[in-house]
This record gives sequence, structure tokens and C-alpha cells, in this order.
Amino acid sequence: MAKSNLSSSNQIAPHFLEAEDRSEAARLRHVVESQQFTLPLLMDLFRRSHGMERVVARGGTLEYQNKILATLFYRPSTRTRFSFEAAMYRLGGKVLSTEQAGAFSSEIAGEQVEDSIRIIANYSDVIVVRHSEAGGAQRAARVSTVPIINAGDGDGGQHPTQALLDLYTIYRERPLVGLSVAIIGELDRGRTARSLAYLLAKFDRVKIFFVSPPELQMKPDILEYLDEHGVRYELESDVERVIGEVDVVYQTRIRPERVVDGGGVKRYAINSALLKRMKSDALILHPLPRTVELDKDVDDDPRALYFRQAANGLYVRMALLTMLLDKD
Amino acid sequence: MAKSNLSSSNQIAPHFLEAEDRSEAARLRHVVESQQFTLPLLMDLFRRSHGMERVVARGGTLEYQNKILATLFYRPSTRTRFSFEAAMYRLGGKVLSTEQAGAFSSEIAGEQVEDSIRIIANYSDVIVVRHSEAGGAQRAARVSTVPIINAGDGDGGQHPTQALLDLYTIYRERPLVGLSVAIIGELDRGRTARSLAYLLAKFDRVKIFFVSPPELQMKPDILEYLDEHGVRYELESDVERVIGEVDVVYQTRIRPERVVDGGGVKRYAINSALLKRMKSDALILHPLPRTVELDKDVDDDPRALYFRQAANGLYVRMALLTMLLDKD
Amino acid sequence: MAKSNLSSSNQIAPHFLEAEDRSEAARLRHVVESQQFTLPLLMDLFRRSHGMERVVARGGTLEYQNKILATLFYRPSTRTRFSFEAAMYRLGGKVLSTEQAGAFSSEIAGEQVEDSIRIIANYSDVIVVRHSEAGGAQRAARVSTVPIINAGDGDGGQHPTQALLDLYTIYRERPLVGLSVAIIGELDRGRTARSLAYLLAKFDRVKIFFVSPPELQMKPDILEYLDEHGVRYELESDVERVIGEVDVVYQTRIRPERVVDGGGVKRYAINSALLKRMKSDALILHPLPRTVELDKDVDDDPRALYFRQAANGLYVRMALLTMLLDKD
Repeated sequence: MAKSNLSSSNQIAPHFLEAEDRSEAARLRHVVESQQFTLPLLMDLFRRSHGMERVVARGGTLEYQNKILATLFYRPSTRTRFSFEAAMYRLGGKVLSTEQAGAFSSEIAGEQVEDSIRIIANYSDVIVVRHSEAGGAQRAARVSTVPIINAGDGDGGQHPTQALLDLYTIYRERPLVGLSVAIIGELDRGRTARSLAYLLAKFDRVKIFFVSPPELQMKPDILEYLDEHGVRYELESDVERVIGEVDVVYQTRIRPERVVDGGGVKRYAINSALLKRMKSDALILHPLPRTVELDKDVDDDPRALYFRQAANGLYVRMALLTMLLDKD
Repeated sequence: MAKSNLSSSNQIAPHFLEAEDRSEAARLRHVVESQQFTLPLLMDLFRRSHGMERVVARGGTLEYQNKILATLFYRPSTRTRFSFEAAMYRLGGKVLSTEQAGAFSSEIAGEQVEDSIRIIANYSDVIVVRHSEAGGAQRAARVSTVPIINAGDGDGGQHPTQALLDLYTIYRERPLVGLSVAIIGELDRGRTARSLAYLLAKFDRVKIFFVSPPELQMKPDILEYLDEHGVRYELESDVERVIGEVDVVYQTRIRPERVVDGGGVKRYAINSALLKRMKSDALILHPLPRTVELDKDVDDDPRALYFRQAANGLYVRMALLTMLLDKD
Repeated sequence: MAKSNLSSSNQIAPHFLEAEDRSEAARLRHVVESQQFTLPLLMDLFRRSHGMERVVARGGTLEYQNKILATLFYRPSTRTRFSFEAAMYRLGGKVLSTEQAGAFSSEIAGEQVEDSIRIIANYSDVIVVRHSEAGGAQRAARVSTVPIINAGDGDGGQHPTQALLDLYTIYRERPLVGLSVAIIGELDRGRTARSLAYLLAKFDRVKIFFVSPPELQMKPDILEYLDEHGVRYELESDVERVIGEVDVVYQTRIRPERVVDGGGVKRYAINSALLKRMKSDALILHPLPRTVELDKDVDDDPRALYFRQAANGLYVRMALLTMLLDKD
């Protein structure tokens, strides 16, 4: 796929993409990993997401009132689950919900996700899966007769819809081409960081700083992917060295117990001291929930976008659902 | 606020209240504690609740079909949760539901309720919170862009909608002015008892008997509030001394392990022996669930109102939701 | 009740049954055990279920949009719960859901199901109960003012809707009269096996092979019921002795720890070797979830019907709901 050369005009998707978009969206059967999203598909998604802001503002639609979304969460995440379920509701649809599918059955421990999906596909029109192991969403997609959306699979897996809403949040603010982004955190196990890196690679002249304690740095598979696609990146362990030059600070958590020098975690925290050193128009994102890595003092700064991210999650997921459900 | 001097006519709200009601309801942004409810607001609520009985009888309404209610329960309570969710459904709306938000996230223990609320406010039009600590609902209300309803916060907190439905249940049966009420149970930690005491204080010539083992008696904050508002009350440890003279018996549980004389719990139980000593037109209420403090033999007595209370919970919560949602 | 003499014509319910059906369905207040279903009622149910296939194919109906179904699951079963909830959604209705009602209340352990039902009956139009003890559904039905559906009660109880969908799955394929059925598994605690045996007994010339390790064979109460109704059956411990002559293989799990000779469990598994010995038009059913007793190699065999069973569960439960809700 050719990389985008769009600069500031990428807020408005070019007309020539439209026909292509439609066919790309028509081919989208499952959402398993962020690499699936070609540039035209991304533009189609973002245009639809933008339209959803208006749909929500006027109270939603009843267009999908005969559709059922099922959430199958083997690990609880109220925020992500609510985001998908609200998206379906604002489209007029219905929701089958699991808070902890780990307790899926009182009878059999370790039930195969394949069997569960084959059954639930009879009861719903789209299934959102959060699985406990990397590859769980792919396994689900392989047997499902209805669209599967990966809502996070394992520590080393992906969380593509989070990355899509992250990117949409940036896209709503500025051109994606030529962007300089610091991705901070426990990157070796960072599902959202991994998914976002794949997406950023699709845009020209992007530069990514992976900022992490050395023992938790981004895994080689992502770095190789970036190398192959000619994306510039640097591995960094010192937040202060990059914070002043990036357009986007994408912060994620670091669990102290995973860092050799436990006290060192604090060095990666975004706080009012670091705020002073950031660009005046920088964007601060965080997938949430947060702990100490993002100080509450940051909340009132106009550059803090993480609560807007959550709202954007609704629009992007509504848009994705329409792309997946509009097949018939 | 002036106390009500209405006597038997308080079943029908006086006409002069109507304009005031509307403005009071318009000012109601969150429901955190029962003290918020002024007399006109209570009368507005009860009139709306009464109307909801007819709405439910004819199968509900679709008027709120583009509204979403989210329940965020850090401690499970299927009854209370279902009551709110059914109220939203009978109004035509939709429901995002948590059974145990304690398992809110697989990633971070001790997530701040403020962050969760800020996110969920993007996905819903009203949030019902049951928090594990007193003050949790207030913290939620402080940051929320949508109405918060307190569905119980901590042992020493409040449960205002329970008290509102308790009072509505009495109101449907008799004048609230001049009422004599025995509130029995583990009162120091009794959320519903506390919330009810605040509400009763709004009506003239009410007398409250707090009946409890001495070590579990009502806390000073409530007693001081009653003193300030000129409400008569007595602290009592012997049910039998008051049971014959009260109009309303409001029973709640006592956990045996909290009583110095464990066997003594039984002395606070309502059973067929005590039934004989009650007024022939007394009302017996209990917020449920119950254990030994309310004998099943009482269920068939015409004075037992506790299952009707549960039905009234639906009407009162429907009414509250309309007051909170009718802003725009 | 007279047994059916219908043979291949039982796919189409005879006209003379219709009036009777209507009155039978009108008398159906709760679904607690499969014995409740007379032959006319079964035929009515199956005709309605068949109709529901068309309703679902065209996207469901909104006819029941003011109805609320509550699921009260004391033991989790996502599949069964989703099946009921999807059935209500496809009918246009709403759903109050519990994933684990065992955590019903944060306050009182061991709350009585009777009190819970009496309360929830105020919030819903039909309640689906999965209780942890045999007889739990009956206890619920005794106090409920709305219809109760038993979704499994205890190890030695019943799971009548599973048996109804099992039977419907067979009925869609061939005449029920004269059928030869092997019911395999841990039959002494097999809720679905027990419920199915009751239903099969209603059809002429049925023969049942109960195939199980001797220590886990079907309990005397079922065998006596079959004797009384003149149904032929054999107790068998060797799958291979019967597999070649039966029309239907109804497989259920066997927990290894319950078999004296643990390794022996494998002898009861359906696998590709056994497939070769089955009739070419045999039907293979399993209520799912499965473990080792049903090999994945069987999945692609045209005789494997267990995933279609799951789809049929939707239709049969939709049909049941209409029978229970169409009273007023």
C-alpha cells in the first residue's frame, strides 16, 4: 500500500477515495489487528466517525434496531465494554453482555473460544471479544459466521480499536503526515502501543520515539515492521530527552514490579514539571485507566486530550459497527 | 425550608406548588443525599411517581428511547440494580450494566471513581453509582457531566432513592404529618435508616423511635440534625416498648456478630407474636433483603408492605429519571 | 395423555390440534419441568418455533417491545443466558441480566430465592432462573406473579428448554415416532438427559439406550417413569454395542473424576472411528459445552447437528416466550 502524502488536507478525505473506500469497507469482515486498515479504509472510518458525532448530538439513530451486539470479555474492562455497548445503543441496536466470560460455564473449565463463538454467532450480529491470550481474536474470527472485533487479546496481542480511536483523536486536531510521536510506557506488553505503531507507519514522514525502561522496550517484530516500511524511530529511556520536540505524547502505564529499578518508574510520569517543557500545541493522550504515570495536575491543561479520547471511542466504534454490519 | 403543615390532604399536591416544583426539579442535577429533597420537590416526585403507576400499567412509554442509563455498582445488588434498569426500560431507554465494577479493569486495582465517571459520562445520559465508601457518590457527582444517582455509598453513607421509595410507600397509605415511626436495626451503619430520618424530618409533628442495641444506635450527626429541625425522637433498645404505639414499623437487619449479646438479636425480630401487639392499621416496611429480623409469618399480614415497597421503587425511580433527564 | 401415533406427518401439526393447542398454551404459566409438555403443547411449540425461523430471517419483530425478560442465574452459563436474552431481543423486548446472581447482594449470604423472585416480578414480565439446587425453579414458580422458566436447577434437576430444543432439532430432521436414541454420558446427574427422556416418552415406539459407566447410570425415577409409560429402554455401558443401530446419538460429558476407572472415559467419546460405524443418516447432538467426549474431528461430518442445536435454541425460546407472554 502506498503511504499517504496528504498533509493538512487529510481532515477532509479526498473524493477520489470514495469508490475505493466503499469496496474496502465492503471487504472488512473482522477487526483483528490494526495492520488490516489501509489508508483508504482509515479515511473512510474517520469520515464515518466524524459523521457519528452529529448522529450522537441529535440523540442517536434507530437504524440498526434489529441488530444485536454481543460482548464476550474473558477479562473485565468496563470502559471498553461500555464504549462498544453504547456505540451499539446509539445506533439503535441491542446488546448481549458478559462482564467476566471467564466464568463462562459452571461446568467446564477451559472451554474453547471457537465453540463459544460458533454458538454466540447464532445469537448476535457482531461479537466483540476480549481474550486473555494473544491470538484469541484471530481464533474467534476463523470460525465465526458474524463479524468479530478484537477488544484486546493478551499482553503481547493487539487492541486495534483503541489505536483507531487514538489516531482519530490526533487526526481531529492536526495532519498525521510528518507527525512526531513519543510512545511511553511498558512497551513490550503494550497492546495499544503496538497497535498504534502499526497505524502510524501508514503516514509519511512520521517519527516515533519509543520511551521505556530498556528492559521493557518495544519488541523486535514491531521495529522490523517499521524498518520495512521506512518509518523513522528511536529507542529512548529518558522522557526528558524527547518531551520538548514531539507533537504527540502517548502515555501508557508502567507497572513498578516490572522495572528493575522500581523507583525509576516515576521518571516516566507526565506531571506539571514536564508540561512546561512540552510544545505549546502538543497533544497528550492516554488510553486510560491511569495510575501514577499521569498526574491529575495535567487534567486541566488544554493539551490533555485523554478524556476526549474516550468520547471519540464512541464515534469510532459506531463507525466500525456500521462498516461491519452494512454488508447485507 | 418551612415544614409541611399539610395533613390528610398531602396525598394531592397543592396547586400553588406547581410552578415552584418545576423550578425545583429543573435545579435537580444529581441525587446524592436525601437532604436535597425539599418539600416541594418531594411532592413533585410523588406526583410523578403516582403517574408512573399508570404508565407501567399500560406497558410503559417509548419517550426516552434515545437515552442510556449506566449502572456502576462497585458492590453487587441485583435488586437495586434491576429496579433502576427496569425503570429506564419502562421509560423506553437503554441500559449499560455492571454487576461488579470492583472488577472494573483487569489492569489496575484501585482505579479512581472520578476517572471512570468522566469516561462513562461520554457513553450514557445518567449514571447510577453504588460505591463502597461513604462519599463515593459525591465524588462522582463533582466531576460528572451527566446526572449521578447515589444507589448506596458505604456503610455510613446514604441510599437516598431507597428512602424516597420508603416514604412514597407510606405516603400512598396515609398522611405523613404527625406520623409515629419506629426505625429498627443496626442504625449506626444503616444507610437507608439514615436517609429516611432526613426525609421524615421535613414533615410536621413526626416522632421517630430509633430502636437498636445500644452499641449500634443512630449516630450523633443525624440526631443533631433532628434537634436542629425540632423533630421529636427517642432512643430505645426494647422493641416491645414502642411497637404498640407506632404507625410505621421500619425494620432493617442486625448482623449478630455486631451485637455484644449475640443471642439478643432475636429480640429485635418482627414475628407473629409482635404482630398481635401492633396497631391494627400499622404499616410494616423493610428495605430487603431480610434474614431473621423479619419472619416469613409476617408476609401474609395485610400490614406487611415490603413487597409493595419494591414495586414502588420502580415508580419512584422512573419519576426521578424523568426529573433528571428532562433538562434539555 | 395418549401417545402420538403420528409418523412422518408429525412435521406438520394436524389441524384438529389447533383449538386444543391454544387452550393448552393458554394454561402454560411456568416452564419448570419437561413433563409439563403434552403432545399438543409440543406440537404448538414446534410450529411456533418453525415460524420463528422466518421471523429471525427477516430481522426479528418489535411486537414485544414493552416486555422485559429478567435472567437470574445463580450459576453462570453465558450460552444459555445469551440464548434467552437474544430470543427476547429478536422479539423486540428488553433484558435485565445477571451473570452471577450468587453475588446477589453484598449484604446477606444465602438470600432466599422466594424473596428475590417476589421483588424481581415487579420489574419484569418473565424470569429465567438457573438455580444451584434441584427444585429451585419450582420454588420460584410457587411465589412468582410472572412466568418462570427453568434454565437448569442443580445436578439432579431439569433443564427443560434444553430438552425442548434438542427434541425440536430431531423433529426438524425426521419423524419422532419409532425413533431409536442413544443417550450417552454421566446420566445420574444429567439434567438435559433427564429432561429429554421425559419428552421422548411421549412418542410411540421410541427406544432409548442409556449408555454410561455403570456407576453413573440413569436414576430409577426416570426408569420407573418409562416403565409406567411403556417406553422401551436398555442400560448399556458399551457405546460400541449400540452406536451402529441408533437414529440419534445424544452425547453429553463425563467428568473423569466421577468414573471409577478414570481412563475409561475415553471409551465413551465420539470420534472419527465411531463415526464410521454410525448409520449414514444418524443425527449427532450434544448440548455443549464439550470436552473430550466429542472430538473436533466430528464437527465437519454432515451428521453433526450440535451447532444447529444452538441456533434452534433461539427459535424454541422465542416460541416459548410468546406462549408465556401472550396471556393478556
